[in-house]
Amino acid sequence: MSAGSIRIGVVAPGGRIEPALAEKLTALAQARFKDRVALFFHPQCFLASGHFAGDDAARAEAFLEIANDANFDALWFARGGYGSARLAARVLKGLNDAAQQKTYLGYSDAGSMLAALYTRGFKNLAHGPMAADITRDGGEQAVTRALSYLVDRAPGTLEPSVSPDHPSAAFNIMILSHLIGTPLQPNLTGHVLMLEEVGEYMYRVDRSLQHIVSNADVRKAAGIRLGRWDPIPPNDPDFGQSEEDVIKHWCAVSGIPYLGRADIGHDIHNKIVPFGRFRPRVAA
Amino acid sequence: MSAGSIRIGVVAPGGRIEPALAEKLTALAQARFKDRVALFFHPQCFLASGHFAGDDAARAEAFLEIANDANFDALWFARGGYGSARLAARVLKGLNDAAQQKTYLGYSDAGSMLAALYTRGFKNLAHGPMAADITRDGGEQAVTRALSYLVDRAPGTLEPSVSPDHPSAAFNIMILSHLIGTPLQPNLTGHVLMLEEVGEYMYRVDRSLQHIVSNADVRKAAGIRLGRWDPIPPNDPDFGQSEEDVIKHWCAVSGIPYLGRADIGHDIHNKIVPFGRFRPRVAA
Repeated sequence: MSAGSIRIGVVAPGGRIEPALAEKLTALAQARFKDRVALFFHPQCFLASGHFAGDDAARAEAFLEIANDANFDALWFARGGYGSARLAARVLKGLNDAAQQKTYLGYSDAGSMLAALYTRGFKNLAHGPMAADITRDGGEQAVTRALSYLVDRAPGTLEPSVSPDHPSAAFNIMILSHLIGTPLQPNLTGHVLMLEEVGEYMYRVDRSLQHIVSNADVRKAAGIRLGRWDPIPPNDPDFGQSEEDVIKHWCAVSGIPYLGRADIGHDIHNKIVPFGRFRPRVAA
Repeated sequence: MSAGSIRIGVVAPGGRIEPALAEKLTALAQARFKDRVALFFHPQCFLASGHFAGDDAARAEAFLEIANDANFDALWFARGGYGSARLAARVLKGLNDAAQQKTYLGYSDAGSMLAALYTRGFKNLAHGPMAADITRDGGEQAVTRALSYLVDRAPGTLEPSVSPDHPSAAFNIMILSHLIGTPLQPNLTGHVLMLEEVGEYMYRVDRSLQHIVSNADVRKAAGIRLGRWDPIPPNDPDFGQSEEDVIKHWCAVSGIPYLGRADIGHDIHNKIVPFGRFRPRVAA
């Protein structure tokens, strides 16, 4: 690890990953970024406790160890699954000043933790690929995009509508729905809100979208962009409306402008969406 | 229809039912209750529009026709599925005084509408079997229980912990989760809250329970009772905690007393839970 390298700690607040994944990703990072990046996988990533990568205490402790260590520049979520929300209250109680300075990158289940950190005023949170995306077909491009963002804040990694003119945020629809009305609901006033989903029936996404836009504070968003929802399992009977019909309907009902598509989703093309306004890397 | 009969209008705010179901239920009601009950199935019950029993306008109009007609004593939900929440705002705008006097009975998806009516101070709302429960194996006992409640307020139909000493409410977990933080979130202060679920993965129910109990107003409930969650699809990997482990965990985290089991669920044993306090039938 050179003195000038970006040091990234990987933790798994949801499901576990295999050691082989960590080895493959470390090799990719070395090949592409040489000594400009140093990856550290917290051993917690490989624990197993039922559904989770270790019990709540182990996952929260690992998260705090990376977040609170000033030697790390970034905390990268290993993968999604489910589990981030269970840790949020415990993590919020344990964060120190070093945690405020760090960059956090993840999506899907990680959105619960990103939302929690956003309520605390953290400035360097972003929705984007996670370590486990390397296992997708062509996944090298997803994790390379993530590393390019973490190392260089490369503008080409950003979702194309991200602009210094307005704050943005991005969420998985189910995850945001489960934050509504809780202390961890993010303040989206004036934000362009990008929403993605994966593998959910249309009736469920419709139900969760109604939920999200029925909240008075969410209605203060500047607009909504629709990420990818693929794959959508067949509804029986057919739902009768496309995903764009559905999002336009709920935007119209709630008075939130519909702004078109967003280049995010559970796939290798998933672009980076910083929470708030994009902040270029400042030379130390 | 005799002058003294209880007149029940059936509407389908979610999915549709078949005319044969209505015929079977009418025959059962006549055999068991003679001229003490008159069932009317609104033709909207048999419409089809994609996922729904007619489009939002048709379903809302049918609901209001029954709710606002003083000739009906009760509005009985035909079945669940999904669709009640989509009508709630439209229905709330159109209710008249006659609607306030009526009894409303349903569960599952119907919970969205019951919650909406509860926010308006409606006094005769109840969680219990719907018309379509007749199609379950042994379903005659479920619909007979519903009719006994609607016709006689028979105390034997009630969930055993229902008491005049405290208000109660009952919800499907997913439905209540989707009401949190919206204008339709019911005021559960001092209530015993009974929760049931069907066919959801443990991780999803865990996620929704955390959501529900994280809301500050829900924490004013007097306690939570656990209805049935059957069937629970196998989690991969095994979730590692039973449903009672999970509900006890979230009750402990949120400080809401856990009060034990409730005799409600998506099955033929589903007992009646009045919203608020049980009000016996008062002779006219």
